[in-house]
Amino acid sequence: MTVYKAPVDEMRFVLNEVLGYEENVTSLKGYEDATTDLVHAILQEAARLCENELQPLNLTGDEEGCHYENGVVRTPGGFKEAYDMFVEGGWTGLANDPRYGGQGMPKVVGFAVEEMICSANMAFGMYPGLSHGAYNAIEKWADDDLKDLYLPKITAGEWSGTMCLTEPHCGTDLGLIRTKAHPHEDGSYTITGTKIFISAGEHDLTDNIIHLVLAKLPDAPPGVKGISLFLVPKFLPKSAGDDWAPGPRNGVRCGSIEKKMGIKASSTCVINLDNAKGWLVGEKHKGMRAMFSMMNAARLGVGIQGLGLAEVAYQNAVDYAKERVQGRSLIGVKYPAQAADPIIVHPDVRRMLLRQRAITEGARVLAYWTGMHLDISDRHGDETARAEADDFVALITPVVKAMFTDHGFDAANLAVQVYGGHGFIHEHGVEQFVRDARITQIYEGTNGVQALDLVGRKMPKAGGRLLRRFFHPMQEFLFANVTEKNMQEYCKPLMAAFGQLQQITLLLAQKGTNDPEEAGAAATEYLRFFGLVSVGWMWARMAKVALEKQPDDPTGFYADKLSVARFYMKKVLPETASLGISIKAGKKPITTMADAAF
Amino acid sequence: MTVYKAPVDEMRFVLNEVLGYEENVTSLKGYEDATTDLVHAILQEAARLCENELQPLNLTGDEEGCHYENGVVRTPGGFKEAYDMFVEGGWTGLANDPRYGGQGMPKVVGFAVEEMICSANMAFGMYPGLSHGAYNAIEKWADDDLKDLYLPKITAGEWSGTMCLTEPHCGTDLGLIRTKAHPHEDGSYTITGTKIFISAGEHDLTDNIIHLVLAKLPDAPPGVKGISLFLVPKFLPKSAGDDWAPGPRNGVRCGSIEKKMGIKASSTCVINLDNAKGWLVGEKHKGMRAMFSMMNAARLGVGIQGLGLAEVAYQNAVDYAKERVQGRSLIGVKYPAQAADPIIVHPDVRRMLLRQRAITEGARVLAYWTGMHLDISDRHGDETARAEADDFVALITPVVKAMFTDHGFDAANLAVQVYGGHGFIHEHGVEQFVRDARITQIYEGTNGVQALDLVGRKMPKAGGRLLRRFFHPMQEFLFANVTEKNMQEYCKPLMAAFGQLQQITLLLAQKGTNDPEEAGAAATEYLRFFGLVSVGWMWARMAKVALEKQPDDPTGFYADKLSVARFYMKKVLPETASLGISIKAGKKPITTMADAAF
Repeated sequence: MTVYKAPVDEMRFVLNEVLGYEENVTSLKGYEDATTDLVHAILQEAARLCENELQPLNLTGDEEGCHYENGVVRTPGGFKEAYDMFVEGGWTGLANDPRYGGQGMPKVVGFAVEEMICSANMAFGMYPGLSHGAYNAIEKWADDDLKDLYLPKITAGEWSGTMCLTEPHCGTDLGLIRTKAHPHEDGSYTITGTKIFISAGEHDLTDNIIHLVLAKLPDAPPGVKGISLFLVPKFLPKSAGDDWAPGPRNGVRCGSIEKKMGIKASSTCVINLDNAKGWLVGEKHKGMRAMFSMMNAARLGVGIQGLGLAEVAYQNAVDYAKERVQGRSLIGVKYPAQAADPIIVHPDVRRMLLRQRAITEGARVLAYWTGMHLDISDRHGDETARAEADDFVALITPVVKAMFTDHGFDAANLAVQVYGGHGFIHEHGVEQFVRDARITQIYEGTNGVQALDLVGRKMPKAGGRLLRRFFHPMQEFLFANVTEKNMQEYCKPLMAAFGQLQQITLLLAQKGTNDPEEAGAAATEYLRFFGLVSVGWMWARMAKVALEKQPDDPTGFYADKLSVARFYMKKVLPETASLGISIKAGKKPITTMADAAF
Repeated sequence: MTVYKAPVDEMRFVLNEVLGYEENVTSLKGYEDATTDLVHAILQEAARLCENELQPLNLTGDEEGCHYENGVVRTPGGFKEAYDMFVEGGWTGLANDPRYGGQGMPKVVGFAVEEMICSANMAFGMYPGLSHGAYNAIEKWADDDLKDLYLPKITAGEWSGTMCLTEPHCGTDLGLIRTKAHPHEDGSYTITGTKIFISAGEHDLTDNIIHLVLAKLPDAPPGVKGISLFLVPKFLPKSAGDDWAPGPRNGVRCGSIEKKMGIKASSTCVINLDNAKGWLVGEKHKGMRAMFSMMNAARLGVGIQGLGLAEVAYQNAVDYAKERVQGRSLIGVKYPAQAADPIIVHPDVRRMLLRQRAITEGARVLAYWTGMHLDISDRHGDETARAEADDFVALITPVVKAMFTDHGFDAANLAVQVYGGHGFIHEHGVEQFVRDARITQIYEGTNGVQALDLVGRKMPKAGGRLLRRFFHPMQEFLFANVTEKNMQEYCKPLMAAFGQLQQITLLLAQKGTNDPEEAGAAATEYLRFFGLVSVGWMWARMAKVALEKQPDDPTGFYADKLSVARFYMKKVLPETASLGISIKAGKKPITTMADAAF
C-alpha cells in the first residue's frame, strides 16, 4: 500500500511566498474573498478528503477496474460513495461560477486541489476532471439556454461530462472524423457515429452524462474547418418544471470499455451515437475552436496529473528509502544501531529521490503560476494584463502538458527503481503509478503533438510575441539577481542555459520558416529545453525567497530548499547541453532515410 | 496483436561481417564444426520456433498469467506444449557441453537465439533462462557426481533450475540472509528458510526443479563471507539404476506467487525450505563466488532481454507508423493516394524509431561481441587471450546489463508513444513490452548496483587493467580510421566523447580512491557515458564495413546502415555532453542534505 500526505505547507509556500497570491489574485474582481486564510482552509479540507477517502481506493480501484455489461459500466467498489462525498463537499464546483452554483474560487486554487486528487487517485479524478472540461466549453461557447440548463447540474456534480473527439481511424487528425450531424427545424440535431477512448463516457456515478461531441454537418467544408461541436446528453432533460430531471434515454450508448495498461478505474468507452439528439455549441463548423477550450484546459489538467503522480511517487520512494535497510554506506556505517543502513544513505538512491523532488517542486511553481495567469486572464481589470496572461497560458500549456507528464512517468519509474524488486510487485502500489502515468504522455495530444504546438504555432505566433513576453521578465529577473553574491550559483547556470535557449529559438524560427520539418525534427528536444529553463527560473525564484527567509528559520525548510535548488542547477539543468547539440544537428539525420528502409 | 520477424540477416551481418565470427570462433577448440552455414541454419530454425510458437503465446500468457493453488503452479495455456517443442528442438542444450548431451554451440550463437526468444516471449524465456544459469553454476563449481547426475537432465530440458538468493529482508545485501544449512555425515545438508522472488521456482513444465540456494552453515562467518551454495532438488532423484527418475518429494515448496507488473507468465515464487535435503556446490562459505557464476551469466542474459524487447518494440512501432494514416507531412502531401499520410513521415515519429533502432543495432554488436569473448575466454589456446577475454567480459557485463535494459524499457515506451492512445490498450500488445521490460532494470542487481560494480569494482580492479584493455583497441581503431575521409563523420564525434570518457575515468578513479561516495554519486551517469561510447564504437565498426560494401550493394542495406550510424553520432552520442557536466558536479549536490530532510 502506498502513502500520501498532501504537501499543504509546500503549496502555501508556492502560492504565498513565491507567487504572491494575495497581491496577484485577491486583487482580482470576484476573488476578493478568496483570502489566503480561506485558501488554506480549503487546501486542508481537500487534503483530508484526498488522504482519507480517495487514496485508499487507488489500489483497489486498479485491481477491480471498471466492469461493462449490456451498455452499463460499474465503477470499482467505493467509487460511488467517494464521489458522493466529493459532491457533498462542493468540490465539483470549486472553481465554477457562483451564477451556476459554483464556489467561485480562483483557478489556481483549483489547480492545487487537482494536484492532490491526482496524487491520491488519478483514475477517480478523471470523472470530475472531464466534467470540468465540459463545463469550460459550455460556459465559453454555448448559448444561455444550454448554459442555464446544464451548468448548474454539472457544477453540482449531479451530472458529469465528456469530450467525444477521437474515432477509430482518427485522433490527432480530427479533420478525418466521420460522425455526422443532421439539423432539425427546432434547432436540435441528430448525431450518428462512433467515438472511441471516451473517458468517463459511461459510469454509475451520476444521474446523467453530458457528451460534447465533434461531428460534421451536411454542408461542412472538408477537414478541420468543417467540424462542429454538439452537446448530447445521455438522458434528455425533461422540463424546467421538473427541474430538468433526466427524461427519455437518448440514442447514445456505450458499446464496450477498453482493457488498459493503467487508470483502470477510469472507464474508457466506445460511444455509439445512433440518431442521438443534440444541440450545437458555438457556431456551425467552428467546433475546433470550442473544442480547444476544453482541450487547453484539459492539457493543463493532464500536466497536473503528471505533477500529482510525481509528488506521490516521491513520497513513497522516500518512505521506502528510509525504511529499507540493506548494506552499509560507502564511507562507513551511518546507522550503527541497525543491522544495515537504510538505502537513503547511498548517493545513487539520493540522486533518484532528488531528481524526483527537484523537478516536481519546480514544476509545481510553474503550474500554479500558470493557474494564476488563467485567473488574471479571466478577471484582471486591465486589458493588456489580460492579453499578456493569455499569451503566457497559450505558450506554456504544451510545456506544462508534455514536460510534467514526462516527469510524472520518470518519477514513477524512479520510485519503482528505489523499491527494487518490491517495486515490480502490484501490492506495493508504485508500479501502478507507472502504468497510470503512461497515458498522460499520450492523451489530449501526444507529447510530440505538444512539441509541434510549441514550435509550430506558439513560437511563430504574432511574430514571436508570446516568447518575448515570456523571456523578457526572465531576463529581467536574472539581470536583477545575478549580481547578488548568494544568487549567483542559481542565476549563472540558468543564464547560460537561457542564453542558449534564445539562440536556439532564433535558429529554429529561421530554419522553420523555410522548412517546417526543421522545426518538427527539433520540436521534442526544444520543448524539453524550454521546460528545463522555465522550471529553472522557478527554482531561482524559490532560491531568492529561501535566501531571504533562511536566517530566521529554525526548521531548515529554506536551507533544504536551497539544497534542492542547487541539485536542480547542477544535476538537472545540464541536460540542456546535450539537447542543444542534438537540436543543432538539424533534420538531416532524421529525414534522410527512406520510409521503406525502416 | 504484435508482430515479430527475427532479424536473421542483421544477426548474420553482425556475426560475420562486423565481428569476424569465422575467424574468431570456428578457430576455437571444439567449435570447428560451428561454421557460419551451420549457425545460419540454427538461426533460421530458432526464428521459426520463436515467430510461430513462442510469439503467439506472449499476449495470451500475459492475460492469463500463472495460477497458484496449494503449492502447485500452472503456467498459461500453451506454455507446456511450447516448452515441449522447445525441448524437442534441442534448444535447452544449445550451448551446453556435449559431454552432458548439449549441442556444444558457441555461447555467441546462444546469445543470438536468446535474443529471439526474448523478443518473441520474454516470460517464456525465463524458464530455460534460469535453467541455463543453474547449469553454468553446477558445471563450474559442483563436484563430478552432481554434474553427472544433474547436468544431462537440465541440458535435456527434463529438469529446470532456479537461483534462490533473495529473502524478504535482503536482496542486494546478501550478507543478511537467514536461511540455514545443517551438515550431515553422509555429505548432504538440510536447509531451512524462506526465499522470495524466485523465478521459475515452481511450474508445470518439467518433471523436476533444481534449486540453487544460498544459505549459511552453523560455522559461517558473518556477512557475505559466510554464505554457501546448495543444490536442492524439488524431488530427490531415485538412483542411477532408475536413470535418476524423480523420487520422494523434498522439503521445498512454493508458498505463493507474486502478482506483478509484467512477465506475468513467468512464475515468481515464494519458496519455503523446510529441512530440505541439499548438497554443497563449491566450497563451504564460498557461495558468493559460485553464485556470481550464475549472476554474471544472468546479468548478460538480462541485458539480452533488454535487447530483444527493444528489437520487437521497434518492429511493431515501424509497422504501426507505416500503417497509421493521420494528417499530412509538414512539408506537403507525401502519399497523395491516401486520405492522409502515414505517420512515419513526421520527423518526431522518425526520431523515435531511429532512436530505438540506433541503440538496438549498436547494442547487438556489443552483446554478441561479449558472447564471443565468453567463447574465447573458455576455449582459446592462448592463456593471455583467455585472460584478456575474461577482463573484457568482467568489465562490460554491468554495462550490457544496465544500458541495454534501460534501452529496452525506453524502446518499449517509444513504441507505445508511436502507437498513441492505441499503445495504452492491452490488446495491441506494446504496453506489455513496457511492463515486461521494467523488471530487467531491477533484477540480477538493479541498474544502480551495476553502476557501482563498474565504478567500484571493475574500474579499480588490477590497477585499471580492465579499462586499459578495453580502451586501447578502441583508441587504435579510432586512430587508424579517423584519417579516412569517409570515416571522419563517425570517428570524430566518437573520439571527442571517448577523450572525455578517459578524462572522467581518471577523475573518478582519483576522487573515488579518497572518497567512495564520489564514485558512487557519479556511477549511474558514468555507466551510461561508458555505454554510449562503447556502442558508438560498435557503430563506427559497422560504418567501416558498410562503407566498404556499399558500392556493390543494390539493396541499400549498407547505405541505410550509414544513415543510422549518422543518427547515432548526431542524435544519441551527444547525450554524453550533459553526462559529463553532471558527473563533474561531484557528490556535493547529492550528499549534502540530511536524510531527515527528504
